[in-house]
Amino acid sequence: MIWYPYTPQKGYKEPILIKRATREFLYDENDIEYIDAVSSWWISIHGHNHPEIIKSVKQEIEKLDQVLLAGFTNTKALELAEKLIEFSENNFHTVFYSDNGSCAVEIAIKIAYQSFYNKNIKKNIIIKFSESYHGDTIGAMSVGGNSKFNLPFKDFFFPSKEFLSPDCYNCPVGKKKERCKEECLEKLENYVINNHSEIFAIIMEPLIQGANGMKIYKKDVLKKIDSLCKKFDIIFILDEVFTGFGRTGSKFAFMEADVKPDIIALAKGLSGGVLPIAATLINKKIYDNFFSERIEDTFFHGHTMTGNPSACSAALASIEVFEKENRIEDIKILEFYLKKYIKQLYEKYPNLILSPRVLGAVCAFELSDSFNPGEFKNHLLEKKIIIRPLGNTIYIAPPYIISNDSLIKIFHSIDIVLNDFTLL
Amino acid sequence: MIWYPYTPQKGYKEPILIKRATREFLYDENDIEYIDAVSSWWISIHGHNHPEIIKSVKQEIEKLDQVLLAGFTNTKALELAEKLIEFSENNFHTVFYSDNGSCAVEIAIKIAYQSFYNKNIKKNIIIKFSESYHGDTIGAMSVGGNSKFNLPFKDFFFPSKEFLSPDCYNCPVGKKKERCKEECLEKLENYVINNHSEIFAIIMEPLIQGANGMKIYKKDVLKKIDSLCKKFDIIFILDEVFTGFGRTGSKFAFMEADVKPDIIALAKGLSGGVLPIAATLINKKIYDNFFSERIEDTFFHGHTMTGNPSACSAALASIEVFEKENRIEDIKILEFYLKKYIKQLYEKYPNLILSPRVLGAVCAFELSDSFNPGEFKNHLLEKKIIIRPLGNTIYIAPPYIISNDSLIKIFHSIDIVLNDFTLL
Repeated sequence: MIWYPYTPQKGYKEPILIKRATREFLYDENDIEYIDAVSSWWISIHGHNHPEIIKSVKQEIEKLDQVLLAGFTNTKALELAEKLIEFSENNFHTVFYSDNGSCAVEIAIKIAYQSFYNKNIKKNIIIKFSESYHGDTIGAMSVGGNSKFNLPFKDFFFPSKEFLSPDCYNCPVGKKKERCKEECLEKLENYVINNHSEIFAIIMEPLIQGANGMKIYKKDVLKKIDSLCKKFDIIFILDEVFTGFGRTGSKFAFMEADVKPDIIALAKGLSGGVLPIAATLINKKIYDNFFSERIEDTFFHGHTMTGNPSACSAALASIEVFEKENRIEDIKILEFYLKKYIKQLYEKYPNLILSPRVLGAVCAFELSDSFNPGEFKNHLLEKKIIIRPLGNTIYIAPPYIISNDSLIKIFHSIDIVLNDFTLL
Repeated sequence: MIWYPYTPQKGYKEPILIKRATREFLYDENDIEYIDAVSSWWISIHGHNHPEIIKSVKQEIEKLDQVLLAGFTNTKALELAEKLIEFSENNFHTVFYSDNGSCAVEIAIKIAYQSFYNKNIKKNIIIKFSESYHGDTIGAMSVGGNSKFNLPFKDFFFPSKEFLSPDCYNCPVGKKKERCKEECLEKLENYVINNHSEIFAIIMEPLIQGANGMKIYKKDVLKKIDSLCKKFDIIFILDEVFTGFGRTGSKFAFMEADVKPDIIALAKGLSGGVLPIAATLINKKIYDNFFSERIEDTFFHGHTMTGNPSACSAALASIEVFEKENRIEDIKILEFYLKKYIKQLYEKYPNLILSPRVLGAVCAFELSDSFNPGEFKNHLLEKKIIIRPLGNTIYIAPPYIISNDSLIKIFHSIDIVLNDFTLL
């Protein structure tokens, strides 16, 4: 049997068997239609089974299943690397492939650390944020905030220095974002000024911290950290596994915030949610520290299926679809409606919906403590809407191409569930 | 551009562009044929692009690209889990999916640790071996032996207790395998007897340590460690990422050695080398420590593309092909010829070939120090034979279906290269 992730093993409801999918819709074995309001863990950015992506994989897999990516290469891996650099508007120089977000983050950390090591500089401290999430492998957990996700394993973590997360809807230092001067960063700034010679990297999720509650913060926070990194020779790593490929409204969140990270980690939306693939993008300054013939300067990291032709082909097709079908425009329209519909709902249920917020193609709010989020999820599932609360945070992160009808259905369903609750 | 894994970034030869593949053959852009004597990093067990695996993926991807695997499931993920349990002859109870071997190992370690943690037992020590390799993420590196692969990162590793690796062709305690009583394990046994209450797991590669030099050891070593684990309530983890699916001559190396590990990690051959997928198989005794409704007892680990229908479909087809085409028989024949051909070569070049050895579908030897392994590789590549030395260890681990003609070509090419060298 399957051990389902993140699932208590006793008394869980049998999972719903999904047989096929298209656009924002999933269909179970009785062909009942569900709206995938979370893009299946934030991946199906073009909706499910986009025909051009599927076609591309089917063509590629006929030719070449896999070839080891050292001493040998393949066309799709080459084309995708080129495309990713172009899509990132040449902010990066080189692409390191892997298979999932956790690995893309581990690669980012290891490259950042070794980039000083290769210059005979020993910097041991990485800065992380209290509400961050970067994946579930030991290294990725080590740079995440403490949570129930990683609690049993904290003895395995390598040391890091943690600061409070920026959060403009629940400010850790009690400010209002309209008038603040990023006071949430004061401790971090002081620490960096006093310890920069030991700090090799700062890692964070740009503009929105996903898995720990869709916490949104303003661009100026990122800009300030970016400046600090530049000033003190610290590598700025952005985990764009969730935010990459349009989620925050721009191609990447770092573009939305107009900052220049040294390394970004990508996965999820990279293949349009079709096949497992991840990538870590590295700028030339960092890469140059590895540009050496010395065996000791080599980055000894690799995953066997790296540069898989089918997965690269899916990613390449996904980016082409992103550009050709003008997803940025879709996201703008989606953002407009998310703002409109959540405002209406908030006006109707100001005591049940807390901190409503929208960024690009994400809409989130906290559910009042009076309402159990698991029950909320189940009520929506009865109405064939799929969401996944993060604690008491409810969010919608649909495929960018979701129809207005489906959006209306989602918000209408939430309305009914909340209304039923008020009548109890 | 692509940052190629394990590759010095300056002065490396342009990688060869592979355009298509079939059976043991890869073809470059000029349609020049190469023999893939290492199964592209040990994955293409049925050869490249086996038509039934390719067909299966093409059919599945049309229906369902991906659905989140919590609260929802898909047919291929269910069928594969069932098939894996059956293929493992019911030695395991449940299947946890991931995307690569490093992650499958991290999952094994985390599950082993939490399995005691959930019973309020704190055991902190994991035992590893000096020449082992389990992957490149921080957790997987932590349980690997020290090598150039992980040297820069040792400050990031969690603590573990290391013992000398068993190696019957270069015994760490100077014995001969025919007459030994596994004296290589004496220190380990003493340590376990005195510290078992703190040891949660022993992790090792069964029968052959792959990436650190194809070091083969006898079944009795595994049996003794298995008994120790059973006696002292220590979880026995076998990393079958390389050995799984026939490489050592049985379906799994643990079957070849007739031991009962609690957890095994699988990847590489799992999908026949077609798509990225990995799995960690767990027995009922361990699983039962998670069989609880308590949120604290939940295993909070997951990768977004987990249970990907296309990848599961490839794996399912690969196992079906393994059984239907009777791969175990192919491996027996292959083993016979590997032994025959390496013996002939050894008799001819007893001073250049050291410790020749064969286990199942792997043939390895050390190259005399007088011959640079990189040059040896290049000479074979000129003859269109692909190998990848591990230090001065030369190995062949071909697809199980390799033709005798191709095998003869490989050994004949090695013969010529060695002969040319003796004439220098």
